Amino acid sequence: MFQKGDYIEQVSIDCVILGFHNKQLKVLLPKLKALNIWTLPGGFIRQTDSLEEAALRILADRTAIRDIYLEQFMVFGSLERSSPKLMKSLEEIHKESIAEAGLVEADFAWLQRRFISIGYYALVDIHKVVPLCSELDETCEWYDINELPPLAFDHADIVTKAIEHIRLMLNHKLIGFNLLPETFTMKEVQDLYETILDRPFRRNNFQKMILDLDILERLEKKFTGAANKAPFLYRFKKMS
Amino acid sequence: MFQKGDYIEQVSIDCVILGFHNKQLKVLLPKLKALNIWTLPGGFIRQTDSLEEAALRILADRTAIRDIYLEQFMVFGSLERSSPKLMKSLEEIHKESIAEAGLVEADFAWLQRRFISIGYYALVDIHKVVPLCSELDETCEWYDINELPPLAFDHADIVTKAIEHIRLMLNHKLIGFNLLPETFTMKEVQDLYETILDRPFRRNNFQKMILDLDILERLEKKFTGAANKAPFLYRFKKMS
Repeated sequence: MFQKGDYIEQVSIDCVILGFHNKQLKVLLPKLKALNIWTLPGGFIRQTDSLEEAALRILADRTAIRDIYLEQFMVFGSLERSSPKLMKSLEEIHKESIAEAGLVEADFAWLQRRFISIGYYALVDIHKVVPLCSELDETCEWYDINELPPLAFDHADIVTKAIEHIRLMLNHKLIGFNLLPETFTMKEVQDLYETILDRPFRRNNFQKMILDLDILERLEKKFTGAANKAPFLYRFKKMS
Repeated sequence: MFQKGDYIEQVSIDCVILGFHNKQLKVLLPKLKALNIWTLPGGFIRQTDSLEEAALRILADRTAIRDIYLEQFMVFGSLERSSPKLMKSLEEIHKESIAEAGLVEADFAWLQRRFISIGYYALVDIHKVVPLCSELDETCEWYDINELPPLAFDHADIVTKAIEHIRLMLNHKLIGFNLLPETFTMKEVQDLYETILDRPFRRNNFQKMILDLDILERLEKKFTGAANKAPFLYRFKKMS
């Protein structure tokens, strides 16, 4: 049971467990007992837990999944994300075990406050994990990411952001490119990359790598007496 | 002044402002008044702030930098990261303005507790921002990332992690590759990418893109009667 004092207040952790198999991507979602609503496997940070220990414990407690690599990807902290009504329903549904534990309503008032939530994800092989339910949950199953059941709080948004994050990480993320002027030389791009990555590139390899991304457009050289010595200028292709 | 009740307790925000110019990367660090120690520009989340509003307000309050894009990159939550001693020194140094504001020691007890800190970074052109000091700070200047002054708490680690994060984002991050068996076909890699990125690739383009990364080793085909129809197998190159 979640007792005030044991936990950092107003902070939760939610885990997006994505399963990959046979060209499909699914997400693991517990369904809350006695409610027609699903959530991400989530929970709170004990005062004695490091953040990472908390995330692994929460995942193990809600799904019995252990020994997987969880990666933090984003913190969710809008003012509207909490749902005191749902927290109240949960208290009502679990009132017997709350009474058995000798707790009273006041012990749970902290759960009605605003929470910010730290999102973690994992990408796993569906066939290598066997999810189980916690006492809060009726089922704990895989859902196709394009056919999610109704999710509590902002959890649908957290799933979307986790997937976006993984996609970005697989692609080149061109951070830094906002530092270039509207038109620029290949050398300027290479300088930027070399500085941020703190490693040299061979000129030809670098040029090939960047052009392969297919995001740059080479501009016509203006006619000048020394045209053949001036470097080409590039700009970003217009995205349609 | 930081008064309990106005803020989410035990959570802070720290901003790593990286400046790029002329092939150099620098980080913006305020020096605390009357202490020979530097920190990242940081602060706390008001109950009425969204997380993003809090980060932008904190940066503006400590450095007068406005209108830049801050990106969350990691939450720091080890049990050892807080420094009650430094917080105590700060209280001592600012005791006059604390008294002027009508506050007493008990109002600051919450600052002595464990904090988890949400890290944000920005990558900016050094010449486009003009940092100023807050009342907490003696100076607020750019430091070469390879020559950092003494930093409080785990802030040196936060700087390192921010830089690592930006480097990873510029490179391909090969998440998901742990889903492949020890040896695999190009089609298996393509299936993985297509699924996670939710887009098709043309076979030749995909193969070229992956091979350009220079991380795969093609294995010799075993001799069989139908060798010329079997696909090549690959494995990861051993990193030295």
